This record gives sequence, C-alpha cells and structure tokens, in this order.
Amino acid sequence: MTGHPQTLRPFLSRAAQLYPDRELVARTATGTGRYTYAEYAKRVGRLASALRTAGVGRGDHVATMCWNHDRHAEAYYAVPNLGAALHTINPLLPADDVRTIVAEAADRLLLVDASLAGALTEAYRGDPDAFESVERVVVVGGEAPDLPVDAVDIDAFVADHDPDPDPGYPDLAGDDPAGLCYSSGTTGAPKGVRYTQRMLWSHTMAILTPAGLDISHHDTVMPVVPMFHINAWGLPYAATAAGAAQVYPGPSPQPADLVTLIEDEGVTLTAGVPTVWLGVLDYLQDTDADLSTLERIVVGGAAPPERLIRAFDDRGVEVVHGWGMTETAPVGAVSHLKPELRGAGYETRLDKRLKQGLLLPGLEFRVVGDDGDEVPHDGESMGELLVRGPWVTTSYYGRDAADDEAFEGSWLRTGDVVTVDGDGYVELVDRAADVINSGGEWISSQAVENAIMDDERVREAAVVGVPHERWGERPVAYVVADADDRGALIDAATERVRGAYPDWWVPDRVEFVDAVPKTATGKFDKVDLRARFDGSLDGSVDAAPPDEGE
Amino acid sequence: MTGHPQTLRPFLSRAAQLYPDRELVARTATGTGRYTYAEYAKRVGRLASALRTAGVGRGDHVATMCWNHDRHAEAYYAVPNLGAALHTINPLLPADDVRTIVAEAADRLLLVDASLAGALTEAYRGDPDAFESVERVVVVGGEAPDLPVDAVDIDAFVADHDPDPDPGYPDLAGDDPAGLCYSSGTTGAPKGVRYTQRMLWSHTMAILTPAGLDISHHDTVMPVVPMFHINAWGLPYAATAAGAAQVYPGPSPQPADLVTLIEDEGVTLTAGVPTVWLGVLDYLQDTDADLSTLERIVVGGAAPPERLIRAFDDRGVEVVHGWGMTETAPVGAVSHLKPELRGAGYETRLDKRLKQGLLLPGLEFRVVGDDGDEVPHDGESMGELLVRGPWVTTSYYGRDAADDEAFEGSWLRTGDVVTVDGDGYVELVDRAADVINSGGEWISSQAVENAIMDDERVREAAVVGVPHERWGERPVAYVVADADDRGALIDAATERVRGAYPDWWVPDRVEFVDAVPKTATGKFDKVDLRARFDGSLDGSVDAAPPDEGE
Repeated sequence: MTGHPQTLRPFLSRAAQLYPDRELVARTATGTGRYTYAEYAKRVGRLASALRTAGVGRGDHVATMCWNHDRHAEAYYAVPNLGAALHTINPLLPADDVRTIVAEAADRLLLVDASLAGALTEAYRGDPDAFESVERVVVVGGEAPDLPVDAVDIDAFVADHDPDPDPGYPDLAGDDPAGLCYSSGTTGAPKGVRYTQRMLWSHTMAILTPAGLDISHHDTVMPVVPMFHINAWGLPYAATAAGAAQVYPGPSPQPADLVTLIEDEGVTLTAGVPTVWLGVLDYLQDTDADLSTLERIVVGGAAPPERLIRAFDDRGVEVVHGWGMTETAPVGAVSHLKPELRGAGYETRLDKRLKQGLLLPGLEFRVVGDDGDEVPHDGESMGELLVRGPWVTTSYYGRDAADDEAFEGSWLRTGDVVTVDGDGYVELVDRAADVINSGGEWISSQAVENAIMDDERVREAAVVGVPHERWGERPVAYVVADADDRGALIDAATERVRGAYPDWWVPDRVEFVDAVPKTATGKFDKVDLRARFDGSLDGSVDAAPPDEGE
Repeated sequence: MTGHPQTLRPFLSRAAQLYPDRELVARTATGTGRYTYAEYAKRVGRLASALRTAGVGRGDHVATMCWNHDRHAEAYYAVPNLGAALHTINPLLPADDVRTIVAEAADRLLLVDASLAGALTEAYRGDPDAFESVERVVVVGGEAPDLPVDAVDIDAFVADHDPDPDPGYPDLAGDDPAGLCYSSGTTGAPKGVRYTQRMLWSHTMAILTPAGLDISHHDTVMPVVPMFHINAWGLPYAATAAGAAQVYPGPSPQPADLVTLIEDEGVTLTAGVPTVWLGVLDYLQDTDADLSTLERIVVGGAAPPERLIRAFDDRGVEVVHGWGMTETAPVGAVSHLKPELRGAGYETRLDKRLKQGLLLPGLEFRVVGDDGDEVPHDGESMGELLVRGPWVTTSYYGRDAADDEAFEGSWLRTGDVVTVDGDGYVELVDRAADVINSGGEWISSQAVENAIMDDERVREAAVVGVPHERWGERPVAYVVADADDRGALIDAATERVRGAYPDWWVPDRVEFVDAVPKTATGKFDKVDLRARFDGSLDGSVDAAPPDEGE
C-alpha cells in the first residue's frame, strides 16, 4: 500500500542494466581514463564492500576531500548505498573550519586526494583531537607520504574485494542518510545539512525534469562545479539516473582542459560558477575550438554577467541560470523562459534569464516582508524568500530547528532578499543580513553597490546600513577607486543610483578605503564594515524615505 | 534534517503562483468552458472546503464516476489535498464490480456525472447495502432525477463555500492516501491499489522527466485516456506540476471532437489507447485538419499497430509507446529511442518503438524464468517482469501482501511475460497466466495469435495451453474465420508461425468457433477456453520442444 523506499541505489543499477556501455570519463594528472556504467556499478560495489569491511554502515559518515574524478564518483554511490552519509569537505576551507566539521560530523573514514593531503595535514596538525573519530584515511591518486595519520592507498583498500554490482547492499529506508554538506555562510561557523536518501532522490528527479536541468540519455554531462560543493549541484546522481555519459574534469582544470574535454567527449551539458566560463570565453578568443556539441552551460553560485550570456548565445550555447543553496540540495530555481516570452525581444528575454528564475515543481515558496506578510509579485517589492519541499532541509545537523532563526516551522528562511515579477521569476537583490532598513523601507545594498561599481575607476564598492536616529538605518558606501577627483566620482555614482532607484537609496556618505575587508570565503565582510563606522552621520539626507518623505 | 513531505498540493499552488493565467479547458455537452490556474486553485479550495464540511478528512475515500472534465479535475486535487483518497470508479464496469468496490472502499461521498447516473442506479438497485457507507451523492453537469439515493447538485454542494486557493488545508504526510483505483484483471474480483501522496508525487516527477513523458510549461496536454482509468495515466497531476495548459475532452469524445480541440487549443501532447487514434486517423482522411501544434501522442494499454506509428510519423506527430498498470500508478516504461539508435534505419527504430520500452529512472526491474533466475537480455528469452519502486504498490488494498502471489517481497509480479533486448528495451510477449509451458520452455500465446491473425480471413484467434501428458502443455488455437477451405487456412497459419518462431510453437490443433468467449472487460476468456477443451490431443507433435527434440 506504499511504494518502495526512495533511495539512490536504483539509479545506478538501472544505468548499469539499460546503459551498460555508456562511459564515465575522468581527466587525471596522467591522462584521461574511462570506463562503462557496467564497470562503474561493479567498482562502486567493490568500494562499498571495502567500506563495509572497514565497519561503515547505516548512519555513519564518510568524508571526502577530493576533486571531480572517477574515484570520487564511486564514493558518491558506494557510501549512500550502505546507508551512510557522504560528507564532502571543501578542501579550500580554512583549516579551522575543516577541524570543526570533521569533529562535529564524527567522520569514520576520510578519502583524500594525494594532491589535497596538505590541506588535511594542516587541519590535523592544528588539533589532532578533532580527528579522533577518523579510523582510517584512504588516499586517492598517488602517494601522500607526509600525512600525520595512518593512511592506506585506495587500491590497497579495495584490493581484497571483488568488483560486483551488488555486493549485498543492506535494505534502506528513505529516511536513511545519504549526504552531508556544510554550508559556509558569510558569518558564523559552518552549519551542516544532512541529506536523506529521499531528499537526494527527490532532487535528482526534480533536476531531470524540463523545469529543472532537462537531462536525458542524449546528454553527456560534465560537472565543473566541484564535487565537494553541494554534490556538484546533484549532477552525478542525475546524470546516472538519466543514463547520460559523464565527464569529470579532474584536479584544477584550466579553460584549455575544459574545452578539450568538451570537444573530445562531445559534452552537451556542463555546469559551474560564472568565473569559470568567463575564463573559458577568454581562452576561446584565441582558439578555433569546436563547441558544436555543447548545448547548455548551467551557472549558479553567483549571477552571470550579461556579457557571459550574450557571448555564449553568439556561439549557440545557452547559459542556464539557476539558484540554490546547500540547504536546498541545491537546485531550487532555474530561469527557463516561459512560452509567452518566446516571442519577446532579446533584451526582455535576457532580463528574465539573468534572474534566479522559476521555483521547481515540488517546491513551495513565499516572499515575506518585515511584517511577515507576503509581498506582491510586482518585480519591485522586496522580501525574504522562504522555501520548503521534499529536498529542502528542515533543520541543521545536530541543531534543533525550533530554536533556529533559519527555520519558520517547516519553511527555510533562505536569507535571500528577492523580488518576484508578474511572470513569477524570482530575482535575488540582497542578503537579508545586508539589506538596509531605512524608514521602514528596504534598500538593496547589492543594487547600490552595482550602481557605484558601474564605473571603470571603481574597483570595489561595499554598501552597509549604519544606525540613524531618524530613519533607523542609512546607507554608507566604502569604495576602492583609482580617482584623483573623488568629488566628481561621488557625483557620478550618485547620479547613477538616482537614475535607477529612489532618491533615498543614495548613500549618505562615501568613504574611500584601500581595500574592502573580506571573509574567509572572499565575500565583503559587512560585519567588520559596520563595526568600523564611526557613528557620525549628520542626518542631512537629500531625499527622505517614503513614509515621511512622500 | 529531512525534507517536507511529498504531497500533491504544492504542484497546484505553484501553478497558481507561477502560471496564474494559463488555462484549463473542458468540453462539455453545452460547449467549451475555460478558466485559469488561479481560478482552478480557488475552485479546488472551494470544493475541498465543501468536502470537509461534509465530513471528509484524512484517510477517507471519495469516489467519482465521471468523464474527463473540469469538475473531475477539481476533485483530483480537492480530495487528496484533504488527505483523502480519490477513488475513481470506471462507470463501464459491470454493476456487480461497482458494488463490490464501493463496499470494499467504503466510500463516504460519490461524485457522479448526470450522464452516468444510470450506471450508478443500476449498481445501487442490485444491492443497496453495498452503498451503506455513501453518505452523499454529488451530481455533476445536470440533473439526475432517477437516482435512488439522496443527491445534491455540485453547485449547491459548494454554494456556501468561498473560492479560495488555501481553505485551511490540513498538514499531510507522504504516507497519507491520495488515490484509490481498482484493477480489473482478466480473472477474479477487482483488486484495489491505494496510492499514497508520496507514490503519486513520485510518479508525477517521473513522468515529467525526458525519460518519462517530458512535460514542460511549453505543453498543452489533453488526456483522452479516461480520468477513471488509473488517474488518466497521471497526466492531470503532471500537467499541473509542469504549468502546462490542460484540455479535457468531456463525455464520449468522438474523433471530430478531439481533432477540433487539438486545433482550437493548440494541443501539443495527448494520450489514449491505440483504438482512439485509429479512429482519429480514419477521420483525418476526409478532413484537412491542422495538427501542426501536436508533437506527441502517448499510447498505452495495448501495443500500437505499426500502421498507427507510421501514419502519424507521416504527419509529423510522434507516437510514444508506454507501458504500465494500475499497480504502477501507472507509467513504468516508455519506449524512447536511445541516442545510439538515432542513426538506425526507420524499420529498426520502429521495432524499438513498438516495444514497451525502457523502465523509468527510480524503478528497478528483474525478468525471471520459471526457475526464479533472471533471463538474459537477448531479446528472446522470456520471463515474468518484476518491478519495484517508489510509485509501485507493495500490496493490494485490504489484503496482506505476504499471502499474495502478486508480490515477492518488495517486488511486484506484473503478470507480464516479457523479453529484454540487448539495448534494455522490454517487450511484452504474453500474460503469465496465458503463456504456454511446453516441455519446460515457454510459448507466447499472443505471438502465436498474432501470427495466425495476420490473415485477412481470420477475424479472431485465441491460443491456449492445454494439458499434455508428455510436454506438460501444448498450444491449441480457437479461430473465428471466414474461409471455405479451412485446411488451406491452417496450412498458411502454420507456415507463418514456423517462419517466425520455433517449429514446436505451432498449435497441435486448430478449432474453428463462431466467437471467442470474452471477459467482462472484453479480453479473450482463456479460462473458459481451457475448460472447453475436450482433452483429446493425439500427442503427435511435428517438432518437439528443445529439451528432448534438440
């Protein structure tokens, strides 16, 4: 009277049955390796068998610090197939964060790329106690002689186990864990999101749909987004589910590597942050590469610059903009054009494609203002985006959701301030922590920053809200600029802000600084900037916020 | 740490938010009605509110005996949104079966089309006690003055309730019921499959994918398959989830009605049994209808004749063959061409498209012979198809799966005998109850029937296995034919069977009959035929089965 549990395993067994000869390709330091889905399923079984012998079972955590390659892809199934969570650690995190999350996750095993062993060593040396739970370190792709912990090469680790598509996997429930990923927010300690089998199953099915990333057996999928970054946006699972060929670009791929893989393997769909594709665009200017197989580049993590979309449109490649976060496993919205926009002009369509897009089927969303009421879908009213759904977490690992500001009942408060236009497209305008509340109305710090930075003399601009007796908060800009005439630069910036937004969005003061302070992940450190402000706004605002100024 | 439950409701609320102006269109006896998704969500809310006032809540059953129209589409969400199961009753069932399933389901309310009230009346009069649970009958689309039970018009039923997209729906779990459908097998009493919210959610996501029916907001979907027939193959839920426009063809649509709706509404995807489309083809020969918007016709329930696929290919419309059953909610496989077959000749591609296809992602399958071992995927070895997955039932309503031959642990025994070819395409060759076990090898009764019927003088041919001392069973054919020279007809049929299959598949005897007996649902009654056989086979087989004959 109820279906079989939703788990990841059948995606792989089906691929091995229906697409036994389709290939997984991985670029390594020593060349390009390849094997078939039939072989993939057997290798996953062998790794799972070795993991089980090492004591890994339901509910355990197995960590990886690895690039995008075949061995990592094998762990993607081997660990969840045992009912354990694959804990993908970002090797670029500060050592302190690595220690924190390994200790909190109590990982029992840790797979590490030989080339990333240094990051592990650094984290370990800082506080060996944090690694107390780790019984074994398995090294992938070479020797790591300086590791301070007992380590075994992955080939030796699996040597006594037979390749076998079904090494006697345990029965699993949809609630069994499958993944664990820590979110590195702009503030505070990393928070873990543990994905159940059902969450990742749901996310996989959702991104297969045309409203998601529209993945089929016709595709050859190359995830450039790191596999330590929210499951490479779920592509390894979805590509397997679809029976698509898979291409893993290996450690630190350069634009030339990516273009070569696209050409050689006939990649149809790839994905990564915008800066990767800007690099590829630069590289392409000096080559006559054949990208004719490439249909779609999925970008996320940051809004793509307009010129990225235009340049790939010129090459016949669609840049598909998506939105998500660790808490949404990650894909929550994709900016596909609705049928009624097909006939619209290029600029109108571009405007929509630059937005974060339409929430996926299966999810629910609300956009609420300070008063908790939903804001109108007019493309202007701002509110915080709340989402919920089968692949959206309802708590952080080891924390009680009831006491957690990130959750409102079953809803996740995304911390993203957005508008929704009349067509339903969500546009991210700011982080909730950064939005400036002036006279009861919101000012998007990002919008003002972008207006100020639209000047080649301006290298960086960060806008923060500072306390103001009358208006609550007022915007102040910190600017890094190469300009002799600072007054003229301020006048020009003011004019640009006024041209695009209400007068009262113009910052009350512009401070010139040598550099904007940054967080560990490279984002503007607005907590620092707000603390740095000396508190002396004179209160003379040219234009008042609307509640008194209108 | 786990996602929000998988329920149907968010599909509709999202459609109302993101596609408020897209339309649902319904053909009625008095013309074509239409309203938007925004209106649809409100009307669903009004009906749900009325149902709740009438006492319907979580775990209850609400029955419908309705054609494909807007009011039925409203019930499709209103009932599950309350955590109740929508029990769609086939009004064409024998009155005895209607009584049986209403009594077993203990339906609390029953929605009936005025035009189908006669079927309800007939069932009721046969045994009013079977309807004891039914507190109220709600009549849709007109008056039904002769109903022997208290009835209320649907407009009066909802009159005191406001249209409202959220009338205060209860929180639901994925395990809450959503649907109930009785399977009318060829033998025995109907058996109920109760779908949970999670099962229908999973099925919806699965058929949205390219491996399923590939449905997006670009589509206008017209389900011709009745909404009382396994949720119209899940299309009302999937179309809503995709934000696709929907077209309901109303009561007893004729080919002209369907073609007019396709033209007027720009239908891109439609679905129904092959006979519907054969009728449409005939109709099209005498008209110059414009089917240019129509991209795909999904057929199922029976294998499409080759000429159907060819004729629609000529018109630029793809006939997509799918397989499923009540127990699989229903879509389990779809015969999409794999990329490596793109370059194959038309006849090769046609052969694949005629098969039942590739199992959908998320499902698992096994094909096992008499000995319980899996058969090779060689396109010839026959075995029973077993499937399991999140939208495959693991028991029948009110019955214990442990004692049920239809289940083997978590696997559903489909009762379909199939082959799987080297590309993974499943082909249905017989029903397990009908396959003939001769000398330890299987003979497909359907294959032999088709070979015999491939002669314009043969009107019907049914092949059954009858007991045989030496071989266990041997095939006997019952043939309805217009032929003076029966010997020549038998010789020709024998030659066709020998040409396509092993010699020992040739029936031992051919009996000419006036008509093949049928079951209540119009299928050959092979139980009757086997009982009718007089038991006198002479044992002289031209060719022996392979265990002794090779």
